[in-house]
Amino acid sequence: MSADQHRYSDAERAAIYRVIRERRDVRSFVNEPVDPGILARILAAAHAAPSVGLSQPWRFLRITSPALRSTIHSLVQQERLRTAEALGPRREEFLRLKVEGILECGELIVVALLSGGTREIFGRRTLPEMDLASTACAIENLWLAARAEGLGLGWVSLFDPDALARELSFPDDARPIAVLCLGALAHFDSAPRLALDHWRQPRPLAEMVYENTWPEGAR
Amino acid sequence: MSADQHRYSDAERAAIYRVIRERRDVRSFVNEPVDPGILARILAAAHAAPSVGLSQPWRFLRITSPALRSTIHSLVQQERLRTAEALGPRREEFLRLKVEGILECGELIVVALLSGGTREIFGRRTLPEMDLASTACAIENLWLAARAEGLGLGWVSLFDPDALARELSFPDDARPIAVLCLGALAHFDSAPRLALDHWRQPRPLAEMVYENTWPEGAR
Repeated sequence: MSADQHRYSDAERAAIYRVIRERRDVRSFVNEPVDPGILARILAAAHAAPSVGLSQPWRFLRITSPALRSTIHSLVQQERLRTAEALGPRREEFLRLKVEGILECGELIVVALLSGGTREIFGRRTLPEMDLASTACAIENLWLAARAEGLGLGWVSLFDPDALARELSFPDDARPIAVLCLGALAHFDSAPRLALDHWRQPRPLAEMVYENTWPEGAR
Repeated sequence: MSADQHRYSDAERAAIYRVIRERRDVRSFVNEPVDPGILARILAAAHAAPSVGLSQPWRFLRITSPALRSTIHSLVQQERLRTAEALGPRREEFLRLKVEGILECGELIVVALLSGGTREIFGRRTLPEMDLASTACAIENLWLAARAEGLGLGWVSLFDPDALARELSFPDDARPIAVLCLGALAHFDSAPRLALDHWRQPRPLAEMVYENTWPEGAR
């Protein structure tokens, strides 16, 4: 079997499945700087992601200015309150959740999606969202690398992308898709935070694997 | 340092960085079935991905019908030809690239994005594309797990999503975003296939990391 020939060792596969299983969305940090060598490894992991037509549409902005960090925090707080209103009956419960750690995390990174590019990028003529998919794969790589390095990462998407783009002087064809909070933390949760907080429980994989066609009424 | 306390061992981190570095988009397979136990592990890795508001918007359709596999191959061939026309001067060069292995791969999986859901999903009010980002993270997990198991994976996005949705009886709020070719292969490439084929060369990470604001004219 040719798969055997290329298979990693049991110990290697265990490490890879461990990090996939133990990755968490983190919102609580201890205020410690991130080692520059570790940050470089984590960003290199992101940059090794697949991208549609080898387009590498991701850009990473390290936010080192305290004033900008504070501005980003304010933008997220504004959207958090708007989201609370939109949630209706669960408004109060939502406001009690901790949903970001922007002011405490060691490193704050804004991830941008740069669209367009040359027409030699194929694979997105009918699926223009493949640029975004590539950038999300890069963030997942970054997330796994961070977990292996003992660092927490939280992907915050509670912000008005146009307002954030203006604050960071983005060109017209770039869009922020993530505010990443990266840093040391006291402990990793054993399950997704929203499950521990009784906001929502995950569903099992078995309900999400179908054969050939979509089963009538499946959600 | 609290990061030290949670850091994986050197051997574990080496395995994780290895798989991130060695993952490839694969289009050439040998025709062998995928072991069901391995497939289950790979799908479980996908299902461990982060998702906005714990929404788990991914669905996986195993294509076991030879007739459906053939239909999907035809849809991809149609879009491949349309893409070739759109590429203009690089038309002939594109048509010489191998861009998919749908008929040869051991396992064919269509990944769907199921949008909507309840309003309790937060984090996408201003960024509705977070559903897609979550599903892309799931595919990246699946890809890394496949590589560790010695299997190749190719993400094909050359298809008309509406036509494919019709063939697979999708509900209105579901959209196929990937045709995944998974299976045994002769060898893994040392670099991205499009680079080896001289289609496009990757750019270094250093050009894609900025500090605070977007540098004037940076692309």
